[in-house]
Amino acid sequence: MARIVMKFGGTSVADLERIRNVARFVRREAEAGNAVIVVVSAMAGETNRLVALCKEAGEPAPGLGAHGVEYDAVVSSGEQVTSGLLALVLQNQGLRARSWQGWQIPLETDLAHGKARIADIDPEAIGAAIDGGEIAVVAGFQGVAPDGRIATLGRGGSDTTAVALAAAVGAARCDIYTDVDGVYTTDPRIHKLARRIDRISYEEMLEMASVGAKVLQTRSVELAMAYHVRVRVLSSFDPPEAPGPGTIICDEEDIVEKKIVSGITPSHDEAKISLLAVPDEPGRAAAIFTLLADANINVDMIVQSPSRAPGHANISFTIPEADLDRAVALLRDAKEALGYSALQSDRSVVKISVIGVGMKSHAGVASVMFKTLADRGINIQNISTSEIKISVLIDSQYAELAVRALHQAYGLDRTPGAP
Amino acid sequence: MARIVMKFGGTSVADLERIRNVARFVRREAEAGNAVIVVVSAMAGETNRLVALCKEAGEPAPGLGAHGVEYDAVVSSGEQVTSGLLALVLQNQGLRARSWQGWQIPLETDLAHGKARIADIDPEAIGAAIDGGEIAVVAGFQGVAPDGRIATLGRGGSDTTAVALAAAVGAARCDIYTDVDGVYTTDPRIHKLARRIDRISYEEMLEMASVGAKVLQTRSVELAMAYHVRVRVLSSFDPPEAPGPGTIICDEEDIVEKKIVSGITPSHDEAKISLLAVPDEPGRAAAIFTLLADANINVDMIVQSPSRAPGHANISFTIPEADLDRAVALLRDAKEALGYSALQSDRSVVKISVIGVGMKSHAGVASVMFKTLADRGINIQNISTSEIKISVLIDSQYAELAVRALHQAYGLDRTPGAP
Repeated sequence: MARIVMKFGGTSVADLERIRNVARFVRREAEAGNAVIVVVSAMAGETNRLVALCKEAGEPAPGLGAHGVEYDAVVSSGEQVTSGLLALVLQNQGLRARSWQGWQIPLETDLAHGKARIADIDPEAIGAAIDGGEIAVVAGFQGVAPDGRIATLGRGGSDTTAVALAAAVGAARCDIYTDVDGVYTTDPRIHKLARRIDRISYEEMLEMASVGAKVLQTRSVELAMAYHVRVRVLSSFDPPEAPGPGTIICDEEDIVEKKIVSGITPSHDEAKISLLAVPDEPGRAAAIFTLLADANINVDMIVQSPSRAPGHANISFTIPEADLDRAVALLRDAKEALGYSALQSDRSVVKISVIGVGMKSHAGVASVMFKTLADRGINIQNISTSEIKISVLIDSQYAELAVRALHQAYGLDRTPGAP
Repeated sequence: MARIVMKFGGTSVADLERIRNVARFVRREAEAGNAVIVVVSAMAGETNRLVALCKEAGEPAPGLGAHGVEYDAVVSSGEQVTSGLLALVLQNQGLRARSWQGWQIPLETDLAHGKARIADIDPEAIGAAIDGGEIAVVAGFQGVAPDGRIATLGRGGSDTTAVALAAAVGAARCDIYTDVDGVYTTDPRIHKLARRIDRISYEEMLEMASVGAKVLQTRSVELAMAYHVRVRVLSSFDPPEAPGPGTIICDEEDIVEKKIVSGITPSHDEAKISLLAVPDEPGRAAAIFTLLADANINVDMIVQSPSRAPGHANISFTIPEADLDRAVALLRDAKEALGYSALQSDRSVVKISVIGVGMKSHAGVASVMFKTLADRGINIQNISTSEIKISVLIDSQYAELAVRALHQAYGLDRTPGAP
């Protein structure tokens, strides 16, 4: 009997009809002889409703209540309700089941209420329950902190709950049911030749998540990588009796047929700032980026190039588009101190990232990228690289053209008509 | 510094505006130097919404999940949300506060999920917290059962939570805030001369609750009586800075000026059944009432009188009106076995109860009642008595007339114009 973990997000448990549908997926795994833990999110919309109530109630005045603790007590109730309802539906369909709240397992967190990290999970009681044939329905997104209060893990935390439970009980796999049927080589909504990826490594999945692929929460992938939990992404909108194969996220060495490039991801949530004619002296760049870091603004894709003014340089970089106004205001206020002559900003940029573990051992990935874009007359503004990712910043009007051209150049196109 | 418990029901915390109003009542007690525990119900309508979800999810098939356990996990979330929100609002208004779930206190119950009884309350942690000046906001209606799961106390259970906490921490009083400003000599909606009662004994309050006065849950009064908790009923719709005095429910010996009769209560939820010409032999009455008891139908006001048929008797009694159809069907099916000749039933009856601890030491209460009703030409059909209550069954068309006449006869009328 294998232990497995299944996780269903908010749209998969949006109402009782959807919850009954989830029960069919669970029944299939239980009847196949597995010992099953199911992790559930709050019903779609419920977390937003509870967060809005907390917002209306107001923030605690400093020193009068620990930040986030009451928020956690209120918002965690959403998953509590879903876990009870799914357990009832399973019982109603003739299966043994019970709900588990985080504090009942217990799933222990740190004290960072509202965005807690998991500290420890006791696998004894829940492991014994599922081995005895009772389905465990766990309220995701929450645990109990050292203060004895409920702590939530932050948005998307149910993915992390599922992966952490899978690690704790030594599950054979952790199936994340969502509203897409897997991870794709690129967004299928913008390119119809995108292919579902059969297997992808943790590292690649992390890079894809970091550039905006919203299939899995980044922390859950980090956790899966650390504990070698085999995660599968599949769709709860597939027929419960025969879901698709989904995408398996696993160790690189478990992927027999390694692609050089696994995916291509456009990220539109970028803006570019250029500071012209900054004095080329030690400490100038540090001053700029310290100013932004102190304001909690993430800087990426830094390029320094010689300025026409001798002894000066132009510095350009990208930041999240949502922070642009704030960053521009900060930099303008510090113009004299920083010593630049002009500031330019640009929202119409897109970051195109090419991701693949094969890059580690294959040269030429970058040159294919540059040549492919050059052939289409697309100018590369900034570049950044990691061991398994190359990102370029281009004019946003070329986003789709670039994705399609690169998708073909790296041999990712699905044969039209093939599945 | 006195410890006090305050309890607010669903209409008092119906939305954030009402919750902010509750916070003003709490602030007043805290600023007066009291150590405060606040018990809250779910926001009005929330429990019904959660119960409906459970109903839609279905009942567990036998043996596949303990009855009521998942219902408790789901429905208890309503109070959890209110407790967090009120704590946030209090913190936001500059007061130290925190929410407490039943399992955090812990408030331990028995295993009767869905209608659990409180087994034990640990007063240490919550007592220390309030003595340290932190307001404790307790989610009412719930605790933790020996199985480690959440258990709810049944409808109205937040009153019981409040009284039990008051007993556990040795509170000076337990204030139950509701939508009426106290307990009245009779329903003020049917008699404008009804007076608010300043003090009433536990025994009288129990009798009033048993005949349908819905101010407090019966179990909370029993608990208050057992532990000598001084309970006060007052209105959350009064100005928070100057609430009215309400009604104090206390030991009989703490009531200096004892009234012979404290209240008069009409109960319309009654129906009468008469079985004519039942053979007057040992065991016949027992057979009738065993049949009804086995069907969980409560019988009250039994009268046996000689029948015109020699060796036979007529037996009449009352039952809750909601059970009438079921009772009639049962008795008809058993007509032969029971041996009666005819069955009559009547829904147009009302039970008028006169309640007062003074009856214990004063004769003549019954005779005043019978004379008063006879003077108005009202026929008494059945009678039942307890040590502090006399109830009569009359034709329901005389209900208001009887209440008003008795209210005057026992000297309960408010002087018109007086408060």
